Amino acid sequence: MKRSVSLKVQLPSVVFVSEVVFLALYAVSVTYSDDADAARQDNTTEPMTNSLYKDYPFFTDVQVMIFIGFGCLLAFLRLYGYGGMAFNFLVAAFAIQWAILVQGYFQFYSDGKIRLGVINLLSAEFACAVVLISFGAVLGKTSPVQLLVMTLLEVPVFAVTEWVVLKYLKINDAGGSILVHLFACYFGLGVTFVLYRPSLNNGHPKEATGYHSDIFSLMGTLFLWVFWPSFNSAMTFKGDDQHRAILHTFIALSSSTLTAFALSAMLSKNGRLTMADIQNVTLAGGVTVGASVDMMISPAAAYGLGVAGCIACMLGYRYLTPFLARHCRIQDQCGIHNLHGLTGLISCLAGICAILMASEETYGPSLYQTFAHRAPVEEDPKHLKLQQLIPGLQPGLGRTAHEQALYQVAAMFGTIGVAAVGGIITGLVLKLPFLAAPSDELCFDDKPYFNVPSDYDNMAGLEAPSGATLDNKV
Amino acid sequence: MKRSVSLKVQLPSVVFVSEVVFLALYAVSVTYSDDADAARQDNTTEPMTNSLYKDYPFFTDVQVMIFIGFGCLLAFLRLYGYGGMAFNFLVAAFAIQWAILVQGYFQFYSDGKIRLGVINLLSAEFACAVVLISFGAVLGKTSPVQLLVMTLLEVPVFAVTEWVVLKYLKINDAGGSILVHLFACYFGLGVTFVLYRPSLNNGHPKEATGYHSDIFSLMGTLFLWVFWPSFNSAMTFKGDDQHRAILHTFIALSSSTLTAFALSAMLSKNGRLTMADIQNVTLAGGVTVGASVDMMISPAAAYGLGVAGCIACMLGYRYLTPFLARHCRIQDQCGIHNLHGLTGLISCLAGICAILMASEETYGPSLYQTFAHRAPVEEDPKHLKLQQLIPGLQPGLGRTAHEQALYQVAAMFGTIGVAAVGGIITGLVLKLPFLAAPSDELCFDDKPYFNVPSDYDNMAGLEAPSGATLDNKV
Amino acid sequence: MKRSVSLKVQLPSVVFVSEVVFLALYAVSVTYSDDADAARQDNTTEPMTNSLYKDYPFFTDVQVMIFIGFGCLLAFLRLYGYGGMAFNFLVAAFAIQWAILVQGYFQFYSDGKIRLGVINLLSAEFACAVVLISFGAVLGKTSPVQLLVMTLLEVPVFAVTEWVVLKYLKINDAGGSILVHLFACYFGLGVTFVLYRPSLNNGHPKEATGYHSDIFSLMGTLFLWVFWPSFNSAMTFKGDDQHRAILHTFIALSSSTLTAFALSAMLSKNGRLTMADIQNVTLAGGVTVGASVDMMISPAAAYGLGVAGCIACMLGYRYLTPFLARHCRIQDQCGIHNLHGLTGLISCLAGICAILMASEETYGPSLYQTFAHRAPVEEDPKHLKLQQLIPGLQPGLGRTAHEQALYQVAAMFGTIGVAAVGGIITGLVLKLPFLAAPSDELCFDDKPYFNVPSDYDNMAGLEAPSGATLDNKV
Repeated sequence: MKRSVSLKVQLPSVVFVSEVVFLALYAVSVTYSDDADAARQDNTTEPMTNSLYKDYPFFTDVQVMIFIGFGCLLAFLRLYGYGGMAFNFLVAAFAIQWAILVQGYFQFYSDGKIRLGVINLLSAEFACAVVLISFGAVLGKTSPVQLLVMTLLEVPVFAVTEWVVLKYLKINDAGGSILVHLFACYFGLGVTFVLYRPSLNNGHPKEATGYHSDIFSLMGTLFLWVFWPSFNSAMTFKGDDQHRAILHTFIALSSSTLTAFALSAMLSKNGRLTMADIQNVTLAGGVTVGASVDMMISPAAAYGLGVAGCIACMLGYRYLTPFLARHCRIQDQCGIHNLHGLTGLISCLAGICAILMASEETYGPSLYQTFAHRAPVEEDPKHLKLQQLIPGLQPGLGRTAHEQALYQVAAMFGTIGVAAVGGIITGLVLKLPFLAAPSDELCFDDKPYFNVPSDYDNMAGLEAPSGATLDNKV
Repeated sequence: MKRSVSLKVQLPSVVFVSEVVFLALYAVSVTYSDDADAARQDNTTEPMTNSLYKDYPFFTDVQVMIFIGFGCLLAFLRLYGYGGMAFNFLVAAFAIQWAILVQGYFQFYSDGKIRLGVINLLSAEFACAVVLISFGAVLGKTSPVQLLVMTLLEVPVFAVTEWVVLKYLKINDAGGSILVHLFACYFGLGVTFVLYRPSLNNGHPKEATGYHSDIFSLMGTLFLWVFWPSFNSAMTFKGDDQHRAILHTFIALSSSTLTAFALSAMLSKNGRLTMADIQNVTLAGGVTVGASVDMMISPAAAYGLGVAGCIACMLGYRYLTPFLARHCRIQDQCGIHNLHGLTGLISCLAGICAILMASEETYGPSLYQTFAHRAPVEEDPKHLKLQQLIPGLQPGLGRTAHEQALYQVAAMFGTIGVAAVGGIITGLVLKLPFLAAPSDELCFDDKPYFNVPSDYDNMAGLEAPSGATLDNKV
Repeated sequence: MKRSVSLKVQLPSVVFVSEVVFLALYAVSVTYSDDADAARQDNTTEPMTNSLYKDYPFFTDVQVMIFIGFGCLLAFLRLYGYGGMAFNFLVAAFAIQWAILVQGYFQFYSDGKIRLGVINLLSAEFACAVVLISFGAVLGKTSPVQLLVMTLLEVPVFAVTEWVVLKYLKINDAGGSILVHLFACYFGLGVTFVLYRPSLNNGHPKEATGYHSDIFSLMGTLFLWVFWPSFNSAMTFKGDDQHRAILHTFIALSSSTLTAFALSAMLSKNGRLTMADIQNVTLAGGVTVGASVDMMISPAAAYGLGVAGCIACMLGYRYLTPFLARHCRIQDQCGIHNLHGLTGLISCLAGICAILMASEETYGPSLYQTFAHRAPVEEDPKHLKLQQLIPGLQPGLGRTAHEQALYQVAAMFGTIGVAAVGGIITGLVLKLPFLAAPSDELCFDDKPYFNVPSDYDNMAGLEAPSGATLDNKV
């Protein structure tokens, strides 16, 4: 029996039901944060100190990454450019709305209301990035209805994990290497494991890039590259912490870019560069430096992390991804395990090393700000002393470096476990009928889901390798 | 008699005459505003409090929208991509220069000089957006010479309307729903009404999108989407007002995006998505929330406005645009009446409701800042009392909510009327000979106005539906 | 003997050796600047006054210009889009790393260490822009290995020149017209002079644009256009100086855009626009206004400079570039001599005029801030008096306007001379074998350096003029 891929009923159903629920939840439980509430302004309020002006520049940068960077990057398939960009748009808009609510209940809730400000939107964009990374594992093999259902499930699992890790484990992870990248990666792998399609392992006639699709995709890479320092530093402390986060991210991206070009030429048979490497592996440094991005790791260490992450990522693309597809039922379409998984693991290790080596000698009293949980507890006389050096220093938990490192390890394994299990369960849900999943031969194809212009068939024809199997009317 | 479409004489004539006039006017009447004038700096000036730093971030965001967002969005026609992007570039540069002068005389004039700062440029970009929206109605059917003449006429009509509305009617319209969107829409419809081309109602062989053109256009949409919060909030009060404007715009865009995808699938025969919907209807929320964007309407209301505007916009595209073209001589090429007109009207209504419901209870004393004209007059003792709560509160007109609402209604109808009449007169001027207007068969075609590369003919051939009527040499 | 164009050995060799050296130098000599160093923060540090927040917005704008603006602009060749964008990416990442080190030793060195902050990155991006402009002269005719070698040589020559000019000649050149544009231009011309390929003067079958490549390239132009005010103002004094720099750049770009459209139509045989003009000549105003961008030249002068630079640039493209190629062995692929050389010279002259006309009447005491070297020497009693008017005014050299003008002239000729000689020597180095230089017939072709998708051959076929010489299998 041929399943329908028509979105006519399913997509509106999922969207309108969600919208009614979202609207009801917004009406009942979302109000303005103090900085956005007219009634909270008085004669002591100075408009230009509104938190808006600290958060909004980073928010717009991350917006460009989410909607344009990811969108273009995912448009690399010649016949699935609409799908890559438009489903990214749909999923991102949906994920952010949903994350505002779910994260709101966990992180921005007081007096029975979610307090909304630009910081909530920024936080929701991180949740959105998680979903979009996972999307990379199943690109071209899932319907937009399935993607919305995946978003509905992934956002709460992520938000709970995030809340537990931040509230109870209290880790250092400014760039989101553990929470964003590792979670997203293993969740996506879980989903694609369940949605395994054996026939795709033999290659698919439409799974091909095109000359212009590759250029669109590289533009996406460049937007991600340019604004990645803003992503990695958006959640750090203001001041020197944020300054370092920007420096380290930039340096690591630079060194991973150089390395990616070199390895791409070196590992190809004919000494030519592969665009997929330039589109993806160049970004490895941004992830690898994430967990230690605000620490005093030194610029040279950031440089080294960029190189190391890039090597791991490149070897992953060359050897691990094909292996996982053939032997482990894990078909990782965009290779998220290389760009987010392997690099995320290296980043965690580097973060742990940086935590173990952090000392008052290097950081001065700021040590207890960057590593907030190592700050002395409130009763500790050292806390008072430190407060004279850093006014406004919050009391901490008095953790030692070793204790903090152990919590990082716990967070890493916990996150991976929850993500993988969550991904597998989500994959099972996505196998439900009526979600307009494409059959194998309709994968990587915009035609099932879009009204395509007349030049589409011609483009499809161009691609057909020796004795076209696609009908085209040129 | 075949009219020439050559730009060889006409375009340089219009440009050079304008440039001489502009240069003379700049020389005679434009000088620096205080914040840009070296001689006005003294030992009390703090460089970082220069107004530049408040305005410039919003200015660059709007620049991206105008030049890249609009430019790419208008490149959706397969054979008119150069025209869409390059004429947008030309018109935008021209409109801003002209608007700096015209708005300067009305809004930034003192001691016989226009005082120039980044705020003037930002203001001129709003006038520019007006022209570009109107351009959407006649895209592909007008020569660049006609577009420059249209700009020459539209900018002053707009600037006068803006000045009357802001100075005499004194309305609330932070996002420009009335002044920008309604004006631009009805002006454009007036122009296209006069330039009616009956033969185009039967379809035009070149009026087709292309696979890559649609991707370029969607990139334009995404740039508009990402920076729309900056557009809607650029002219609000700093602080909580701007904060709310950003939140509301983002929420409304998100909900209209979701709705647009759902409706696009629902209203298509085969349950497939239409790229034109994703490129345009997703943006409806940004306009719809405009007139009330800085008010305490609640996040849920912003959500609802996004959905409502999107529904109106989508139904407009499906049913109203074809109706207007067939029965009212209004050929609205990009459907600006849907994206800017219908949504603008809803926005006005929502703004009026928000004004009527605004109370001191919700806003606190800030009520008289957001609704500046409801502030008590200078002599009123209440003014003094309020100034203690909000230092620097300007005296207002002591309007009641109902009075303010009536002024909004007057502004709405007045703007629509002036715009439509201005558009019709402009249309008549554009019918003058010697403006290089394209004949019907040269519409939607880059070839009359650009030296095209050799692959153009091939692309043109691809498009020809069964039995090509275009000459191509493949 | 056919030389190999394989990158398999050469590219990794150059990259890995450089990376090892860079990493060693970073480890040995790069540390954090005060604003990025946790140990330098104390109870008097206010996080939001960190220099990060002054520099980062301009840094991201310039990043977009470098990686996306230049990248897309250079993708205008139909069969060399990958090369344009990806080599731009590679060279930019490499140049910035290298410039951080080299400029660091000259400009940011204290106590035996380079002090790293975002300002260093911004400064390195200017060095990077220099390399990318020079790249324009040899686009499509050099291998990525050659480009890296060129970068290795150009960055130190530039950094030394910059240091000498800024430290000893002490000139005014906020927009980098002398240091960035003239240096880059004459260096690039020097390189291409040595790499002269006589056969290319007869045209090359692959040296053709494509319809979509031209659109990508125009997008690049628009990104450069939009953020050019940030580039020209990134290095000025904060406050009114930066405000003026932004205004002037915007005005000059606007007027040069209008002029470029008019001239493009006027100078073409058939009255049609040429995309190459719209992509390049529109930007002339940004360069032309550079040397006087922060001075009180008046908005009208900025307007006039935009027009003048545009005319020179356009005439250069039409008449000078072909002349140089035929008669002077200078094959300037992207016409950098027009967009950066001629305009740079006009800019210098304008800067000198502005310096000669600058008076205390126009500038007030700020005169001695904008023209820092005209400030009185420390012992001069006038210095004390001025410090009361402008607290924090640095003592200067007591130069007169004429003296300053002479230094500008010296800097201009000195820079041109050093750049040209440096470029010629670099060109000789690039002729070394084993740098994977493409043969004449492999110029302007992505195939030697990239694994291209299957539609590439088809695109190549489309282009072949009457009796294709390229093998294609359509």
